[in-house]
Amino acid sequence: MQLKRIIVHGRLNANLKSHLAGQSGREFIFATDDTLTQALLDTADAFVGFRLVPGFSYEHLKWIHCLGAGVDNVVQWLDPSTQTIVTRTTGPFGQKIAEYSLSYILRDVQCHDVFASEQRRQRWNPVAPGILAKQRILVFGTGDIGKRVAEVLAFFGATIVGVSRSGGQDARFSQVFSIQEIMGPIGADILAGVGYIINTLPLTKETEKIFDDALFCRCEGAMFINVGRGGSVDMDALVRALNASCIRHAVLDVFDEEPLSQTSPIWRHENILVTPHISAVTTAEEAAACLVETARLLESGAHPVSNRVDLRKGY
Amino acid sequence: MQLKRIIVHGRLNANLKSHLAGQSGREFIFATDDTLTQALLDTADAFVGFRLVPGFSYEHLKWIHCLGAGVDNVVQWLDPSTQTIVTRTTGPFGQKIAEYSLSYILRDVQCHDVFASEQRRQRWNPVAPGILAKQRILVFGTGDIGKRVAEVLAFFGATIVGVSRSGGQDARFSQVFSIQEIMGPIGADILAGVGYIINTLPLTKETEKIFDDALFCRCEGAMFINVGRGGSVDMDALVRALNASCIRHAVLDVFDEEPLSQTSPIWRHENILVTPHISAVTTAEEAAACLVETARLLESGAHPVSNRVDLRKGY
Repeated sequence: MQLKRIIVHGRLNANLKSHLAGQSGREFIFATDDTLTQALLDTADAFVGFRLVPGFSYEHLKWIHCLGAGVDNVVQWLDPSTQTIVTRTTGPFGQKIAEYSLSYILRDVQCHDVFASEQRRQRWNPVAPGILAKQRILVFGTGDIGKRVAEVLAFFGATIVGVSRSGGQDARFSQVFSIQEIMGPIGADILAGVGYIINTLPLTKETEKIFDDALFCRCEGAMFINVGRGGSVDMDALVRALNASCIRHAVLDVFDEEPLSQTSPIWRHENILVTPHISAVTTAEEAAACLVETARLLESGAHPVSNRVDLRKGY
Repeated sequence: MQLKRIIVHGRLNANLKSHLAGQSGREFIFATDDTLTQALLDTADAFVGFRLVPGFSYEHLKWIHCLGAGVDNVVQWLDPSTQTIVTRTTGPFGQKIAEYSLSYILRDVQCHDVFASEQRRQRWNPVAPGILAKQRILVFGTGDIGKRVAEVLAFFGATIVGVSRSGGQDARFSQVFSIQEIMGPIGADILAGVGYIINTLPLTKETEKIFDDALFCRCEGAMFINVGRGGSVDMDALVRALNASCIRHAVLDVFDEEPLSQTSPIWRHENILVTPHISAVTTAEEAAACLVETARLLESGAHPVSNRVDLRKGY
């Protein structure tokens, strides 16, 4: 496969340019929503971006590469039987998301907000913090990201239970259940005593609004951390669960619509903490390194490349 | 050695009673400041408490055991040449202090306060958090607690530099310097690029007010976390360093006088976070287990016991 003309699209372009300079034998064409045309796409071998711009045809391309870890904004516009190879950026997403999640779990276990409130009242109130080894944590998604999250939390002795499509076991988790199992009769047992739920699932037809009333109402006051996709959560159900104390607190980094609208009531819910999709920021340097390496592997005929997206599964 | 009559003193007594019940062959006498007398001490084999009550003589006792990890409130009242064996509680202090310290480092690296402030304004501002692997962290004290702090932070790939009395090297630290070195000509080099300073030092004559103007003014905007002893810090110097931005933020769990007086201006300093000496709370269960095990070892003639205090070093 030859990948000579590559269209690069999206918000990282200004920074990507310098990191992609000096790649001999390859021409990078930097495009925006305004400059992208079908004629331009028809001259290219490949397209690189965070999402496909709707209204164009991409399936004559040899390669489409996503600059982020989530690929739903690409996959949804493609026929699963296309010959085009789709890959995604891999890198230290797992580590970044693990540190993000841990930071909010520790903030809670260590009672930061209690002490901040006592400090405002100048009150010495020695509440004993908890320790991570006593926490039971449920991680939805057992891919690269979920695995790293589990590894980091298990280092502290926490009990990490996984939930995945297949329910296949993995040594990083004390146990892995399938999504069917958690929604079935044993779901309440799995959720008993869970203090933290972390969603790292990709957005697919199967995971759309998987966090709904039925799931949330089985929770016993867990904190819910969403670092996967906003579309996996029924936000009305989450707000009901928060108001009913089935969920104690939500930390949300991803939303159905991003940026979150300034008028959204989510910003003002006292038990929701909003971060602006920063739990796994792709730096231009990391994105460029992965892009160049993937192009090199594809040209050399490597098969399969480890970051290839399975269009039938959707991730 | 026989340890039959043991006086137990202090705030854990109510909870210790149940954990010490059923220890055959041993009598525990629970005392308070009001009920402790020299006559009572004269009938005892041992004294257990967080501190010695001044005005009494203890050196006829076979054993004095501290319920906390810090022993300065015991050591200061004893002649270093006394025959009395002094021990301290060991247990998961290191792990607790590591999680406490990590929680505040992650809170900072992950920009919690930035996002909280943006949320109040309903503003989507995707600042990229840092990662722990890029942090350079200085840990004062390379004993059990400092070592565990270093191990936990090194797990994330952070660079951990130690500072100790002797400067002896330890594999958990990328390098260990002596207190003399940090105060000498190479101090500025050691402190260059340090984002976080964690004090775990015991309070001794050598460490009293070791954190002074000379040390703080060499810092380049680090966050200072004190989980050792309040007496190691010149608080006026710390406030000057905060105002001059040599120290960016202070997280203080220990103070010269505890509880911190309600009228102290420390409560209201915008760059000081106060917690009420909770980074390594001894639970009654942990304290009782250590007390019983130490008594058993001493009676069986074990020598030396690993938690013995060196009265000449003061820790």
